[in-house]
This record gives sequence, C-alpha cells and structure tokens, in this order.
Amino acid sequence: MSPSTPPTRFAYLGPEGTFAEAALSIAVASSEGARYPQPSVPAALAAVRSGDTDAALVPLENSVEGSVPATMDGLADGEPLVITREVFLDVVFVLAARPGTELSAVRSVASHPHALAQTAGRLAELLPDVVPLPTSSTAAAAEAVAAGEYDAAVCAPIAAERYGLVPVVEDLADHPGAATRFVLVEPAGVLPAPTGNDKTSLVVVVEDRTGALLDVLREFSVRDISLTRIESRPTRERKWVYSFSLDCEGHVADRRVGEALAALHRVCEDVRFLGSYPRADGRQNRPVPAMADDPAFAEADAWLAAIRARA
Amino acid sequence: MSPSTPPTRFAYLGPEGTFAEAALSIAVASSEGARYPQPSVPAALAAVRSGDTDAALVPLENSVEGSVPATMDGLADGEPLVITREVFLDVVFVLAARPGTELSAVRSVASHPHALAQTAGRLAELLPDVVPLPTSSTAAAAEAVAAGEYDAAVCAPIAAERYGLVPVVEDLADHPGAATRFVLVEPAGVLPAPTGNDKTSLVVVVEDRTGALLDVLREFSVRDISLTRIESRPTRERKWVYSFSLDCEGHVADRRVGEALAALHRVCEDVRFLGSYPRADGRQNRPVPAMADDPAFAEADAWLAAIRARA
Amino acid sequence: MSPSTPPTRFAYLGPEGTFAEAALSIAVASSEGARYPQPSVPAALAAVRSGDTDAALVPLENSVEGSVPATMDGLADGEPLVITREVFLDVVFVLAARPGTELSAVRSVASHPHALAQTAGRLAELLPDVVPLPTSSTAAAAEAVAAGEYDAAVCAPIAAERYGLVPVVEDLADHPGAATRFVLVEPAGVLPAPTGNDKTSLVVVVEDRTGALLDVLREFSVRDISLTRIESRPTRERKWVYSFSLDCEGHVADRRVGEALAALHRVCEDVRFLGSYPRADGRQNRPVPAMADDPAFAEADAWLAAIRARA
Amino acid sequence: MSPSTPPTRFAYLGPEGTFAEAALSIAVASSEGARYPQPSVPAALAAVRSGDTDAALVPLENSVEGSVPATMDGLADGEPLVITREVFLDVVFVLAARPGTELSAVRSVASHPHALAQTAGRLAELLPDVVPLPTSSTAAAAEAVAAGEYDAAVCAPIAAERYGLVPVVEDLADHPGAATRFVLVEPAGVLPAPTGNDKTSLVVVVEDRTGALLDVLREFSVRDISLTRIESRPTRERKWVYSFSLDCEGHVADRRVGEALAALHRVCEDVRFLGSYPRADGRQNRPVPAMADDPAFAEADAWLAAIRARA
Repeated sequence: MSPSTPPTRFAYLGPEGTFAEAALSIAVASSEGARYPQPSVPAALAAVRSGDTDAALVPLENSVEGSVPATMDGLADGEPLVITREVFLDVVFVLAARPGTELSAVRSVASHPHALAQTAGRLAELLPDVVPLPTSSTAAAAEAVAAGEYDAAVCAPIAAERYGLVPVVEDLADHPGAATRFVLVEPAGVLPAPTGNDKTSLVVVVEDRTGALLDVLREFSVRDISLTRIESRPTRERKWVYSFSLDCEGHVADRRVGEALAALHRVCEDVRFLGSYPRADGRQNRPVPAMADDPAFAEADAWLAAIRARA
Repeated sequence: MSPSTPPTRFAYLGPEGTFAEAALSIAVASSEGARYPQPSVPAALAAVRSGDTDAALVPLENSVEGSVPATMDGLADGEPLVITREVFLDVVFVLAARPGTELSAVRSVASHPHALAQTAGRLAELLPDVVPLPTSSTAAAAEAVAAGEYDAAVCAPIAAERYGLVPVVEDLADHPGAATRFVLVEPAGVLPAPTGNDKTSLVVVVEDRTGALLDVLREFSVRDISLTRIESRPTRERKWVYSFSLDCEGHVADRRVGEALAALHRVCEDVRFLGSYPRADGRQNRPVPAMADDPAFAEADAWLAAIRARA
Repeated sequence: MSPSTPPTRFAYLGPEGTFAEAALSIAVASSEGARYPQPSVPAALAAVRSGDTDAALVPLENSVEGSVPATMDGLADGEPLVITREVFLDVVFVLAARPGTELSAVRSVASHPHALAQTAGRLAELLPDVVPLPTSSTAAAAEAVAAGEYDAAVCAPIAAERYGLVPVVEDLADHPGAATRFVLVEPAGVLPAPTGNDKTSLVVVVEDRTGALLDVLREFSVRDISLTRIESRPTRERKWVYSFSLDCEGHVADRRVGEALAALHRVCEDVRFLGSYPRADGRQNRPVPAMADDPAFAEADAWLAAIRARA
Repeated sequence: MSPSTPPTRFAYLGPEGTFAEAALSIAVASSEGARYPQPSVPAALAAVRSGDTDAALVPLENSVEGSVPATMDGLADGEPLVITREVFLDVVFVLAARPGTELSAVRSVASHPHALAQTAGRLAELLPDVVPLPTSSTAAAAEAVAAGEYDAAVCAPIAAERYGLVPVVEDLADHPGAATRFVLVEPAGVLPAPTGNDKTSLVVVVEDRTGALLDVLREFSVRDISLTRIESRPTRERKWVYSFSLDCEGHVADRRVGEALAALHRVCEDVRFLGSYPRADGRQNRPVPAMADDPAFAEADAWLAAIRARA
C-alpha cells in the first residue's frame, strides 16, 4: 500500500460487538472499507504486518485498567508499525437481555471478567442472588444470551444491538467516566499530515545509569515539548536496559519535535517512532512559545548558516 | 497493630491456589500467620484498612500484563497504606488434570482469560481441536477440573497441588520468563528498617505544565538517586493534573532519599509515600557515590550549622 | 572581636580621597570608628586577618573595569573572611585644580591610568594639547596637584575636597553611569542578621568535567534561588580544577539557601562561604515562591519526620 | 578583505615593547605583515572596524588581573568582530636598566601600576628604600629609563631589548606563573577552518528570570559541550537583562556546537558569535563522545528525514 492510498481493510480486536468495533465505527465510516474481527491484539497487528489488512484498531490504554501491554509490546517489537489515528471511547456498559426480559426475571449474568469487575457493585445491588459467570469477551456474552445460554450479558450497547438484545439497565459501571484509548495502526510507511493539534508516540531504550531518563526528558524540555504520557516498561531480556513508552505533543514534521527525536536517536540505545497523528482526547496542545515554533528554528538555521558560510 | 508487632493475619488475592498465594508462601512462612483469600484486590486492601487483617499480598505489575491498575489506584487513593515487602514470582503455567488423565484424552480446557492468552500458542499446538473456556481465575479452573466440569485447567502448580490435580504438561507459557511482582501491604504506620538494598515507592501529583515531570526527576537526580520504575497515571477527575507512580532506589531513612521526598513535598501538588522495603528482584542498588551517602549529608549539615551559628 | 561587637577600626583601599574612602563614608558614619588607608587590597585584607583592624572596605567589581581580581582572590584564598555589607558608589570624576585655576590655564593633567582611560575622550576635547600623566592613584594625583606638581587631576570629588582643590569640570567620565561595588569584609565569625533582601556570596571549586557547572547551578535552580553574578576564575595551580565566584539572592539563614549551600558542600571539591549581607544595589530580590519559603521547608521536614518516626 | 586573504596589517595594544607586541610576535611571524601599535584596546578594535588594519591583537584575560573589560565590552558591542586566534603569554617581568647599571645603584624604579603591583614584594626586598613611580605602560617605563629619566623599569624582556636595556633582575613577579590570554581579532566575515582542537566564544543576553542561565547551560550540556570560561557581565543600560561572556570547546562547524548556537539564538534575547579558533592553552578538548560527534548527527538527520519523507 502506498502512503497516498487510504486503508480500506480494517482489522480490529473482535469479536463483533466489542468496544473496539464501536471505536472503529467512530474512526472510520463503514463506507470506507471492510472490517475484520481478530481474536487478539497480536493477531490484529499481525494482519497488518502480513498485508492481510491495511490497518488495525486496537486498545492502547484504559482509564480503569491502565495500559494494554499486548498493544504496547506489539508496537515496540517486530516489524515497525505506526499509529495514524487515536480514538477515545467512553466505556459504557449495559445489562442486555432478550426483548421482553424483565430485570426481576434475570437468573444468570455473563461477561468478560474485566467487565464483571467494573460492574460488580451495581450487579450486587440489582441482582444480589446471581453469581456472574465469565466469558471470553463482552460480545461473546451477548451472543450467548441471544443463544439462550444466559439471561443477561454485561456488554457494550453495540453488542446488544448486534445480537438483537435490549438494555434492561443502562450505565451499569460502578465508576462512570471510564474511557478507552484506541489507536489505528498502519505500516510504518504512513504519516498523517500535521493538523496543528497532534501527538507523537515513541519507545526509547536507554542504558541503565542514574539520570538516563532525565536526559531523555531534557531533550523534550529544552525544546518546550510537553509529554502527555510516560511509562517505564519492564525488560527482562536485556538486563540493565530500560525502555520507556511515551507520547508528546506535536508532530514529527514540527521542527522542535523532529529535533528532539533526532537528539534521542543520538543519545539513546534505540528510538522507535510510533507515529504522529491528530490529538483526539478533546484537549488542545499547549501553545508553542515563539522561541520553539518553526519560524524560530528557520531563523536560527539561517543565522547559523551565515556564520558557517565563512569558513 | 503497633509497628513493632509483626503481622499475623494475611489477606491475599484469592481464591486458594492463585499465584498470589504462591507469592505469599514465599514471603511469609505458613507458621507466621493465617491466610485469608479475598475476591479482589480492592477487597484485599479493604481488609487491611478495616483492620480485619494485618497485611495483604497483591500483584503490582507483571512483565507480560504490565502494571495492575487495581493495586496502583488502590494504594494511591483512600486511607494510606504502605508496601513493606516485595516478592517476585516467576509465572509458570501447567496444564493440570485429574490423576490418570492423558493429554490425548483432554477434550475441554478452562482458565482465566489472561492465562489462556499467555498459553494460546502452546494450547493450539497441543490441543488443536479444543476451544478453551474462560473462568474467573486460574484457581477456579483447577477447582472446576477437580469437580469434573472440565478435563484440564491452565493454572499455577500450587493450584494443581491444592485441588489434587497433576500436571499433564509443564511450562505451558508461550513466552517463558514472565514474572509478577507482588507487594505486601500494611497500614501506613509501619516502616521496615533499612537493609542497605531497599526501594522506596511514591505517588506524586503535579500541576500540568511543561517540565513538571522533569522537575520531579531533578529532585532525584541532584541527589544521585536512581529510579527503577515510572508510570504516568491517567487522571480523569482533575483535568490538567497528572500523577506519577514511581519506585526509586534507597530507603526513606537514607538522607538522600528523605531529602528528595521532602523536596517533592514542597514542589508537588501532592506526594504519597508508599513505603520503603527490601529490594527483592535479585539486583543490587547502584553504589551510592561518596557525595550522596549519609556521612556526606551529616558533614554538610555540620558545616552549614557552623556558619549559621554566627548569625 | 566577638560577633556581637560592631567593628570600630576600618581599613580601606587608600590613600585618603579614593573612591573607597567615599564608599566607606556611605557605609559607616565617621562617628562609628577610625579609618585606616591601606596601600593595596591585599594589605587591607591582611589588616583584618591580623586583627589590626576590625573590617576592610575594598572594591569588588566595577561596571566599567569588571571584577577586581585582587579582592576576588584575596577572599577566595587565605584565612576565611566574610562580606558583611555591600556599597555601590557611582563613579564620578571631576577635573580638579587649585582654586582660581581656569580650564584654559591647565597645561598638565595627572591621574591613575584607569581614570585617564575612562575620561580620555572628554580630556581630548577639553585639553587637546595636553598629554595626561599617570599617577599611582586618583587621590595621589590630587595630592600632587595640591603640591603644585601638576595643574589638574582627574579624581573623585572627595579627593578634590580633601586636598583643597576645586572642580574645574564636573562629570568628566566618557560614559556616565559607571558604578563600583565595594564590600565591607570582616573575620569569618561574623554574620549579619537576615533583612528579607539579602545576598549571599560563594566560591565553589569543581572538578573538571562536562556539566560540572550545570550541576552547581541545578542546586540553586531546584530551590528557586536566583544568581546575580557568576564568574569562572582561572586556576593555574591545580590543572583541570575550576572555581566559580558567584552571588545569589537570599541569606544563608534562609532554608532554601542553606540547603543549597549544604548540597554544594557535598558535591563540590570545595565551597567557601563569603557571607550573607543586605542587598544594596537598589533592587529587590525576586519574591520567593511559596514552595521555596521557610514554612514550606518546615512543613516538608515535619512530613518527613513523621514518616521516618515509624522505622 | 575577503576571508581567503590572510591579514597583513596588525594593530596591537602598544606602545612598542608591550606584552601585546610579544604575543603578536608569537602569533604572527614578522614577515607576515606590518604592525601598528595603538594607544588603547578601543583604538585597536576601531582600527579593524574602520579597515585601517586587518586584525588587532588585544588582551582578553589575565590569570592575575582577570578579564579585560575593554576587550570584553569592545567585542560585545559595536560592529561585529571575531576572534581568529588566541595566544597565551607567560607574564615575565624583568628589572631593566641601562647597560652597566648595578642593582645597588638603582635609586628610582618606574612601571605601569599593574606591573608594580605584581612585583611589589620583590621590589620591597631588593630595593627597600625606593618608592616605585607609575608610568602609562611598562614599555613607556623602559623608554623613560633609556632616556635617563629613571634608573630601572619593571617591564617585559621584549621592552628591555627594544630600548637597549639589560635585565638587572630576571623573573621579578611575586607570584610566578601568571599568563595573559591575547586574542587576534578580525572582521566578522572571517572564520578559521576547524583543527580538531578549537574553542568558540560567545556573548549571550538573557532575560532576567530564575533559571535563565541554567537554560543557557543546558543547551551545551545536552550536546556534551564543555565550557572553559563563563562570566556574567554587568549591564546597567538595560535593567533586568543579563549578559554572559563564555567560551566553549569545539568549532561552530561542528554539528554539536552549531546546533547549540542555533538553539541559543532561539531561546536567548541575543547571541553574538565571537569566533571559532584553534585552542592554544596547551590543553586538548575533551574527547567528544560518540553520541555527539558529527557522524552521530548525520545519522540522526538521515533517520529523521526518512520518517518525515512519508508525510
């Protein structure tokens, strides 16, 4: 696929009816291409690497569950991939049943253990005598309810709809407001154009010494770049080597971001560029101070070039 | 419980037969006290806060799954608790069945979805025709096998043993070498004595401005303290406020660590001390340079006091 | 002399009629003690070290001539002395002659070479045919004019007055606005009380490595302390060792300043404390942010002490 | 003058026989051009600016007297000039007299006050009854001795030689080992080629805020550049604005140095480039770490360009 060709085949973390499919619906109109559910994050990423699909939509982090290691590690290792879009999806659970089912008639409830954990309080209130049962995904629970195996499922609204169920209880989460950040991943040859409100994702690997992380952060700080996420990643393979997964404001095409990345390339053991893409969490990047915007870099270059031209 | 009284009642993330129980067996001899399985991390922490138990053993991070948000957030919020011990447990999965079961006779396999994910490749090789089924924990799968519900469970060796099963296949993990870091958590009034090879855990909350994290790290760096883990934590509640969960080398009783914490207390929105405890990952802290050891601080204090005494 | 006894015998860089005497008149009322001119800065400092005088007033830096190495080095080496006061004196030159002398009658002009250099332009305009002649001090020139050796002297108004001369031309400097910073120096046992607008002077010696100066400055920066002067000093004696002479805002009795000094004492080869004294350049220190004021340090100490008390 | 034309007309701080002339003799063979003594540093710099000479040799700093403000300020202000060479000259004083003069016959001694100050101790030992007399330069003293005005002069060996005097006492300095650093200054269009052991000189002007100098130093530190000199310069004209005069290792043609300068151009109020020239103090620049050498920058550029090419 050439960078100029938009993707038309989309893998996502399935099965149908998952939050990932809901996120994909937000990111990509159904008319833009076909969608292929995958059994796991590694499978979804593999589908892009093998060329079986053009892109994959996978979860990166969740405000309740934290980062998704399968995605983090799947992007950090193997054939390079880049993030081209991010999508934030509010995590909304419904208690879904076959049409006509009353709450008082629910004798069995099923869902993925994570979903059951996030709704345990409400379920105990609503259905004190029911012991929830685990399934391999929230969508699988909905499918099983449709098949008559259970009375109700804790699932996304999209799953209820897809399997012909209706919500008996809406907004089931114990702590409303949770959101999952999904990312659309494509082959490394793709780079969305800057929009003026972008993020850039990286994995940097540093040798193990006091102050190594500080040195990484200084390269951002001296160029007035804000980080929006940082996480040290355990590396068991190479003892005494650490890696950090991080997101910063700005696009690699911005002078300040590009120079920070080039500096990291020099001073770190390894830097993997994971993409520059439009920021989609509803926030605006901080204003870039005049001393760090592209014209300031251009002017400094011209000044330096004039000095060097004399040698 | 007074600090001088060792804990005798231990909660852990149950049910019986989980990796958490295995980790507790490493951390605490069975003669040291009674053990109480809890249904969830929040329940285990609540048991300590309520005084129902003296301590809780919970998972903090896993080399495959990453950090455990329930533990991270459970320590960051609510009544203060501190970590008094850390335990690293290699994650070893076995395929466990009732005695006499041959691999070729296994028609059904069950386990927690995480365990199934980490053994999916091996299971597909060994049992290509079997669709694994989810349970609420690996131990629950073993219990169900013992009860005859399934033919085999993917679980910890301790779970097999506890439920009278035998391993049909050992070392089932697709990627061997995974380890989980568990922590023993006690009420905030407890602080283990320094051992010379300790770690200190913190949560720091900073206002949202470029360079805020850098300022946090500088307080460690100027005092020659190495970080061993850092993770930004999403905070949806207070927009534009960030928190970081981090571990550093050294004990709060060390001058350099104590002064760094006091400095953070001044410059951060909030600092929560999560304990100083013996390092247990098999590594030694980096040697403390002469300029950062306790005698250097004492000498500097004496020098300063002599100057100030003249005023 | 005990710290509680104010000095009553003052050495100064003589002879009588120098800018140093003028500065001393500003700093100390004539009723406060006797004044002893000294032939050189080293002689003035030696008089304090030997106990022959209680204090010495010497020039530290000049906005035209830069720092005064004899004072810098005289304070950096030898028996410790401290600065207890600073005095800024505008450098005002007059062309002084015996009463009754007209400008047109001036056929010879003398002064110290520095003074001649700072008035060369005006002298060339006013007296184009006169070749100025050097003397050992501006006051010596005035004395020589009084003795009839020359027609006019470039000197301080105080020198004209003292030797019975009158100003033929006022404000003779080519670049008006120059000022000299003098310091009153006392034995190391003296420390003025904080006033709320103080400066602290130091000499720090660091080993020769990239970033050594940065590490020094970080100790100020992390504690929100501004520097008002810094100068690297050449050290020929100890190759590969550098020293820096610097002034910062605040008093050593301030928590933030004291901790910065103690930190430097740990991390530098050597730190010499040169005094905390009221700021006298007409500027106010920058407001101390709440996170760096004394109550913030006290609160952080209390917080840390409570944690450590549990061990 | 085009950069490719070597200078042939050299101004220097005169008169003939000064240390500046001795330094010029070291820097430039007498066959390379004509030499023009100038009465002052400003006059020497003005001769280059006006095109009357091609270059000027002036003192920049002295290990006893410190920096030479007339040179510092003369380079910092006015039409841009650059340093193209540095020369270190040991300061050696002789007591010079007319041939045949015995020490015991010396009844009068003259010299520049600075030279008298640096030899005061030895003179007091050798000639306890003689009061030294000031002249406008050490060379002028030698000339006056030759003319019979005084019996002996404290001057440079070159001055004795030039005026037909002989040294009665050699090595007269109280503290041997002093050296003066002279610089050859040319119009701003000239830049010597890198030699592998170069220095670069700058003046940077920063706004007045806590940490401004730290930010300047970070731009060097993040690129592994060592400073060899730094000095804050008093600025009375623009209140609350500071300037720093500094020298660093490396040549502006080096990637790391050029990028540091360009960064300073962005973040400082003003940066004046004062030249890159061969280091001549007998020391070698510190080895450049692999991560900061030119190939590392080139590789990082290529890496970044490949990423950006996709946009």
